[in-house]
Amino acid sequence: MSKSIFYHAGCPVCVSAEHDILSLINPANVEIVHLGNDKSKIAAAEAAGVKSVPALVTPNGNVLHINFGASMADVKA
Amino acid sequence: MSKSIFYHAGCPVCVSAEHDILSLINPANVEIVHLGNDKSKIAAAEAAGVKSVPALVTPNGNVLHINFGASMADVKA
Repeated sequence: MSKSIFYHAGCPVCVSAEHDILSLINPANVEIVHLGNDKSKIAAAEAAGVKSVPALVTPNGNVLHINFGASMADVKA
Repeated sequence: MSKSIFYHAGCPVCVSAEHDILSLINPANVEIVHLGNDKSKIAAAEAAGVKSVPALVTPNGNVLHINFGASMADVKA
């Protein structure tokens, strides 16, 4: 199984969702990317269709926007 | 592990999210509730904090609103 990628930016909504997702999905199958700490990955996240964080990009390329923490514009600011 | 509950209402966004969630989480750990077909469960969903569908209520009671298909007002209409 290929990995999902969970994008977040350290906001409280993100951290809460991260805990929930990692309790539901095998953590070995999820790569966590903190866009606030690793801004070089913002372009890849946007190319994948991520509009806001937290978001989970599934192995088949779908984007699940989970609740709403911050827009990508906020992440880039 | 207690079950999560995935609430949806048959909308295209809901069905797409359902497929994604069931490919990520063991289906044995998720109860699927179609609020359009089972309106008697709308009150329980709202009590759990569901504001829109699709949404996943985790075993610890958190609500993950995934993308946006329809508001609960739309579901009740």
